Order: sequence, then C-alpha cells, then structure tokens
Amino acid sequence: MESAIPLHLETTRTRHKRVPDDYQPPYPSFVARYKPAVNRVVMAYFGLQYSGAAPPGAMQALKDLAGLFAGEGGPSHWDRASYADQAGYDNVVTVAYWDDVTRFDAWFAPAREAWTGRVREGVGTFVEVLRPVVARHETLFSSLDRPEGVAVIADGMSGEVQEHAYWGGMRDRIPLSQTDAMAPGGSPELIRDGARLRVKAHDNLCLIRSGQDWSDTEASERKLYLDDVEPVLREGMDFLRDEGLAIGCYANRYMNVIAADGSASEKSYGQSWWKSLAALERWAESHPTHVRIFGAAMKYLSTLGPSAKLRLYHEVTVAAADEQFFEYLNCHAKTGMLAAVETVTA
Amino acid sequence: MESAIPLHLETTRTRHKRVPDDYQPPYPSFVARYKPAVNRVVMAYFGLQYSGAAPPGAMQALKDLAGLFAGEGGPSHWDRASYADQAGYDNVVTVAYWDDVTRFDAWFAPAREAWTGRVREGVGTFVEVLRPVVARHETLFSSLDRPEGVAVIADGMSGEVQEHAYWGGMRDRIPLSQTDAMAPGGSPELIRDGARLRVKAHDNLCLIRSGQDWSDTEASERKLYLDDVEPVLREGMDFLRDEGLAIGCYANRYMNVIAADGSASEKSYGQSWWKSLAALERWAESHPTHVRIFGAAMKYLSTLGPSAKLRLYHEVTVAAADEQFFEYLNCHAKTGMLAAVETVTA
Repeated sequence: MESAIPLHLETTRTRHKRVPDDYQPPYPSFVARYKPAVNRVVMAYFGLQYSGAAPPGAMQALKDLAGLFAGEGGPSHWDRASYADQAGYDNVVTVAYWDDVTRFDAWFAPAREAWTGRVREGVGTFVEVLRPVVARHETLFSSLDRPEGVAVIADGMSGEVQEHAYWGGMRDRIPLSQTDAMAPGGSPELIRDGARLRVKAHDNLCLIRSGQDWSDTEASERKLYLDDVEPVLREGMDFLRDEGLAIGCYANRYMNVIAADGSASEKSYGQSWWKSLAALERWAESHPTHVRIFGAAMKYLSTLGPSAKLRLYHEVTVAAADEQFFEYLNCHAKTGMLAAVETVTA
Repeated sequence: MESAIPLHLETTRTRHKRVPDDYQPPYPSFVARYKPAVNRVVMAYFGLQYSGAAPPGAMQALKDLAGLFAGEGGPSHWDRASYADQAGYDNVVTVAYWDDVTRFDAWFAPAREAWTGRVREGVGTFVEVLRPVVARHETLFSSLDRPEGVAVIADGMSGEVQEHAYWGGMRDRIPLSQTDAMAPGGSPELIRDGARLRVKAHDNLCLIRSGQDWSDTEASERKLYLDDVEPVLREGMDFLRDEGLAIGCYANRYMNVIAADGSASEKSYGQSWWKSLAALERWAESHPTHVRIFGAAMKYLSTLGPSAKLRLYHEVTVAAADEQFFEYLNCHAKTGMLAAVETVTA
C-alpha cells in the first residue's frame, strides 16, 4: 500500500487527510506516476462544432489538427471523442497531452492561430487548455495495463494506493490538499477579441475527465453495464449539462471515444468544468443523480466482484488562474466555458 | 444559518471542517442545544433479555426500574424499545438521560445493584452507560417540535445548522473534531466479577442512536416508507448485527419504540457500538448496505420534497475511555459489547 501522493511531493501537512493512517480500501486502485522531473502536464481540448451534416471544412480542420500534432513539439499522446450537445450541435473533441510546458508553448502559438484564428464556413472551433503543476492534479484507475488520457504520458502506474474508495479521496490524492483548501477565487469573465471569445476563469477552477471502458466485458456483464449502469450515468451527465450551473458545474460533455481508425469504440468519458473541487465533491456525494450513479456502480461491482471487466478511470485538476486558457471561435453560446458567462452584447 | 458547534465550545482549529465556509446545505436540519452550564450528559441503556414467553421476573424487573427512575436523582427523560436479537431472544431496552453527572452517579450506585446485581430466573439484564462531555457528542434532527432521545433533556433546538447533508458532517458537528482525530485506542477487554461480566472498551468508542418516526405520514407517503425504505433499512441493520464486527461495528440493535402506555408506536431506531467514528463513517459512506439505505432515503425525500412527514434524527457520541460502563448479568454471549470480547472460559 502506498500513498497516491508521490514521495517527492509529500510536505508537512497543515490539513489532514480524511481517513486514519490505518485505513485500508476495500478494493485496489492505482494512480499514474510521472517521472519526478515532470513538474507540469498540459491537457488541451481542441473542439470542433457544427450543426447537421458535417461541412467540408470540418473534416479539413481535423486533418489540419492531425498535421499539427505530428509536427515538431506535438503532443506525446492524443485521443478523440464526439458528442451531440444540448443545442443540437455535433462536437468532436480531440484531447492532447504534453509533459513539457516549454515544448507545448512553442508548439501552441502557431497551432492556436491555425485552430481558433481562422473562420471555417459552418464550423466552430475552440480550445480549452490547462497546464497544472503536478501537485494540482490526480488520477485514479481501477486496473493496470491500459492507461487512458494523461496517464498515457506518465512514466507508469503506482502500486495499490490508500486514498480511494471514500468520499474525499479525490481531494486527498491531490498533493496540494496537504496545505491548501483550494477555494475558488472570483467569477469567469468574457474577453472579446474580434470574433474570438476568451473566458478568463478563476483560481482553483476544477476539471474532471472520468471514463469507462466496457470493451473487455462479455455477455451478462456487458448487459448489466449497458442496461443498468449506462442509462443512470447518462441521466447524471444530462443533468450536469442542462442544470449543472446552479450547483457549480459550468459545463459537462458526455463523450463517446472514437477509435484511432475513426470507428466507434466501447469507451466513453464525462468531462466537466467546475467552479471548485468542493462543488464537484458535493455533487458526487449527495446529488440524487450521482447517488444513483454511485448506487448502480456499487451494485454492479458487488455483483461481479473482482471478475468485473469494466475499466474505470478519472483525472482531476484544480488549476491556478494562470494555468488556464479558454478560446472559442464561431461556437454557440452554451459551448464549454462560454456557458458560464454572458456572451450576448446588450 | 448557524454552526452545529455551540459558540461556547468553539476553539482554535488545528483540523479543518470538510466543507468551505460558504457551504449551504440543500435542506434544513437542526441540533439540540444544551444550556452552556451543562458540561456532560449521561445516556444509560438498561437492557432486559429472555427467550420465549416473558418470565414473571421480566415484568417485575421493568416495574422495579420504573420505580428507580421515579426516585430521587432519576433521569430527566427515558424511553423504551424492544427487539428480537440474532440469538432469538427478546430484548427490552430502556434508555434514560441525565444532564447532571453528579445526580446520575448518586442515583446509579444502588440502581446498578438492583439491575445487574441480582439474578432473576430466566432473565438477563445489562446496563450500558456513556457520560460524555458535550464536546464529544452531537445530534441531528430533520424537523423541530418533537425532540427524541437525549434532545428531550436539552434546552431546545438550534436554528438551521450548516454542518449537515454531506459526508463528514457528523464529525464536523462534534466540537472535539476541531482539534482531535478521535482515533480509537486499544481493544475491548472482558472483566469477570462473579456472574457479572463487564467490558472495558477503549478510548473513542463510538455510539450512534439513529431514529425514524413515521407516525405523521399518511397514505402514499406511509406506503413509500414502509414498502421502499424500511425493508432496505432493516437489511442494513441486520447486516450490522450479523456481520458488523469485521468492519468495526461491535453490536447493532434495530429497535421498535414502545409508547408510554406500553403499546407499539410508529417509531424505531438503530443503536450501535463502533470501534471508532471513522469505522461508522466508512460504513455509512461506502458499504453497499448503507449506500442502499441512503439511496432509498434520497429517493423518498426527493419524491416528497418539503411535504415529507417522516421525521429523522440521530445522536452520536465518541466517548473517552473513562466515560463508559458496560455490565451484563445472565445475558447470552452476543449481547451488546459482549460480542466484542471472548466470553467463553478456556
């Protein structure tokens, strides 16, 4: 048993973790481990949006993006997913990860101009970037051998960690929680730059990407996931998308992962922006929609036990104000962090 | 909005509460307020046990107890409940409350001799007493105007309190949590004193009494409680009774309250002894049996909203080693805290 907090980020606590030192989680979980030399990671969400049939510019934009990724300084890993949003638009979101912020910065300046710097007919584009110090970030995996998201660029996986399977584990896995309550500071603001809209959020904005992979499940387990768990998960994701703002969820996307060959996969993830880690904690712990998700997952896992083939993971970041970048071009007003600000000109 | 921790027990924190200062609970709850002069309360569980038809000595014992209660120094309030235990015995438990430990001590010495100091044919008796400083104790009520248990002897009820409706609220309501993790110290030990068996437990043993009152419910709400909530609650109570030891629950009783006139009431409560507050927290937050209880209760309350007539309350104490007393006479080996120790002589 090891701590989710890597040794080199352990510090003298001014805040206690939520469980006693002899706490034993009831089942194993693992976290991504970066090389100690990695002090920041970058996660960049490149979104593309259109209504109805895909305009020619949409496919071209994705090709252009792939070209940028393949160029000098491109990401160590990227994946792609799609979803239909609440305004009826199709969205394709490509998430790219770096473990070297200098490399990212050099790459990003021209890439940003190519992505949100030119209008494409019938296509909206956006980019949402966090570049947290690793002390503001945590991951959690239900099993080894298949990293997802930011964990793909990590050095490897931990052994079994202690800080999971209790409410508050998410916070306790973030190294900064040893000394900082990570309270939010301020409100999101809109910045107009011609047709480009930027959102300046605030200190301690929180991002979660929380995924599931049912590609290894068979027969009865697959049926149990698709019939009993997925619909409850979808209902919770829809709630956050449509009614999340009142409880501190600025935006939520429930994404279907697209395989490398462009086909549909048996993986999905929810990705959401939150006013604070505390707001995310409150929803997860006590909102009826997540209590139902948790109940369905508990029933599923207690029915199947260690034989369950469903894979679950998440990554959570609480970003400082200067670790964030949000830019939208030609997107509808409920896209991503635009939903958190008033974009209509009086 | 006020803190559950009374002003005169507020102290400089070395430990943080689990929610930010601007946390707003989603529905109102209240706590019992004692007069500031009250520095300890006493809760004494007087149990009586028999198998099959009630022996003549059982009714006589209850009459004797009522006589003791009515005498000089008797409790400010008492109530009575019954349950059939896992060994097939009927148990009648009378809980009595004092807010003056000196008065209790004077009263208890002869009362104890009368209760667990003489053998009654076919009848076991036990007494389980906590006498915590109020800083080691908390209560919670879903509504005003009908105090239960220890709250009956309080000065009154608070206004709406902040520290509830999140996991960790129970701990945050206990004033000692401001500075103390309340970790358990040691293991329960059996002390033989002739036929009397005493259990010396350990520092920071935890007691919860958690009750429900459906007497005001009507028609569809009553049906919802009895059909959808109560069976799930009973399943969780049975789990704690039969399999609780492995997760730190020494004993659990799911009691039916007996009205003052001796008839059945529409009130029940679970009462359990725990190795630590942390063990109780872990069960409540993540064990499938309580997750189902919580899910059923959430569904019930979100269906009914503020019109719900079901009343819920609890009281929780984390007792210091010298605030406890457990004594059993002629009881079976799984009675109360006896279940936590080996009583068979080699």
